[in-house]
Amino acid sequence: MKEHARQARAEGRILGLVPTMGALHEGHLSLVQRAKRECSAVFASIFVNPKQFGPTEDLAKYPRSFEADTSKLAAAGVEAVFVPEPGEMYPAGFSTYVNVEGPSDRLEGRSRPGHFRGVTTVVLKLLQIAQPHFAYFGRKDAQQARIIQQMVRDLNLDSEIVVSPIVRESDGLAMSSRNAYLSPDERKAATVLYQALDTARRELHRGVRDALELQSAMRRVLEAERLASVDYAEIVDAETFEPVLRVSRASYAVLAVFLGTTRLIDNLYMDFGEGEAPLAQL
Amino acid sequence: MKEHARQARAEGRILGLVPTMGALHEGHLSLVQRAKRECSAVFASIFVNPKQFGPTEDLAKYPRSFEADTSKLAAAGVEAVFVPEPGEMYPAGFSTYVNVEGPSDRLEGRSRPGHFRGVTTVVLKLLQIAQPHFAYFGRKDAQQARIIQQMVRDLNLDSEIVVSPIVRESDGLAMSSRNAYLSPDERKAATVLYQALDTARRELHRGVRDALELQSAMRRVLEAERLASVDYAEIVDAETFEPVLRVSRASYAVLAVFLGTTRLIDNLYMDFGEGEAPLAQL
Repeated sequence: MKEHARQARAEGRILGLVPTMGALHEGHLSLVQRAKRECSAVFASIFVNPKQFGPTEDLAKYPRSFEADTSKLAAAGVEAVFVPEPGEMYPAGFSTYVNVEGPSDRLEGRSRPGHFRGVTTVVLKLLQIAQPHFAYFGRKDAQQARIIQQMVRDLNLDSEIVVSPIVRESDGLAMSSRNAYLSPDERKAATVLYQALDTARRELHRGVRDALELQSAMRRVLEAERLASVDYAEIVDAETFEPVLRVSRASYAVLAVFLGTTRLIDNLYMDFGEGEAPLAQL
Repeated sequence: MKEHARQARAEGRILGLVPTMGALHEGHLSLVQRAKRECSAVFASIFVNPKQFGPTEDLAKYPRSFEADTSKLAAAGVEAVFVPEPGEMYPAGFSTYVNVEGPSDRLEGRSRPGHFRGVTTVVLKLLQIAQPHFAYFGRKDAQQARIIQQMVRDLNLDSEIVVSPIVRESDGLAMSSRNAYLSPDERKAATVLYQALDTARRELHRGVRDALELQSAMRRVLEAERLASVDYAEIVDAETFEPVLRVSRASYAVLAVFLGTTRLIDNLYMDFGEGEAPLAQL
């Protein structure tokens, strides 16, 4: 992969990388499509990174669909797919970790200790191996994208991180490989994340700026769903992921909700453009 | 610097980087000379990295001799010198650190908590900025060199770490920018590090392999010097920097010794070649 990337760079091509854990859905493919528009050589990686799973998490049962994934990537025009074994990425004696202190300890980081250390370490490795000019991530994992952007800035890495919109099912559920875990009843109930965020969006458009008020509105929707159990529902600054009291600059409403044993996340991006009306992106 | 390096790489040149904290001596210049032999473009950096100094250490008084340094580097044929300000390397909000767990906690790492985290973080940044094919480090900081090599391997970095022999004064004292702190009496006494290591070397050639015996021989020499106070004097594995019981594979005798308030380090590399006689490099 490194040799291939080096050669493509030497030929003056613009390289794009779409790092994935496989189990590809329309969200991933939207990243590939964007990369195809913006780059002249698009690579993808498929690696279910053990370092970003906690000891009690779903590493073993994480969905794997290698044949289907590579077919989709080939059909979408990906030129090379990097599929390392865990032992290649983490050989015996591996002991180096990259950590973005601060934002890695909140929200996803608090619920999943060590998660972001695993993410930043593997993403740094993938960027060194594939040497992309642009690397593409989905906004569903907004905190992850923010942390990776911070790492790239702090460590002077030679890649630009591109964050693409959330792709949703027709009923609003954000695409996620983990949706495959849901029972039919849980799948129906899972739209409650979208509904809660949509409620916050409507409140924002009604002029509500108080974070607690927006949070309460989301919680009321979530708590009305018997199958859902809230991990967090917060309004945070889009840079620091620290809680805000009022939505007065770029912020996220972020949710993590259990449906049975399946943990789903979703978010609403809120910002203020030139005019008075807030910009709210689901 | 990044643009200059990118262009030099695009021209097919082989890039060498000599990262320094300035206050250059013959040890640094031997690295430049080696880089000149092995590369077609040699860069140096001068940056007194605040992140690798502890709160009670000598950051403020660390010797700075910018004019003399740049003259020496120019005379030695260095093509570009990268001299960032602390605020450029660590802008407001900087929060990403690279850590090699394990070897970073022993010896220098135990005496100087956080030191190696600062070293690996700044070296990763310098490697990303200057993009060298080869980066040159002195063997006086053997543990540092080993930790940086581990980082490069673990993170798939695109640079090779070259470790060069220790350069010594005529009486054996290893060259170090910190030697400038020594009073005339301390300077005379400082040769005790070399003498202790030379004693270990002679014991090794006499057939001694027991680590405690070699350690005791070194301590006897060090403790006979009234101005010296031992921080550590150990025999360690050259890969892991864990203590060994017997010298049976590549190992170091490593010393850290205070002369007054000045802390000096030095080491002896021990290995076994094809024959029976051990290889011992001071």
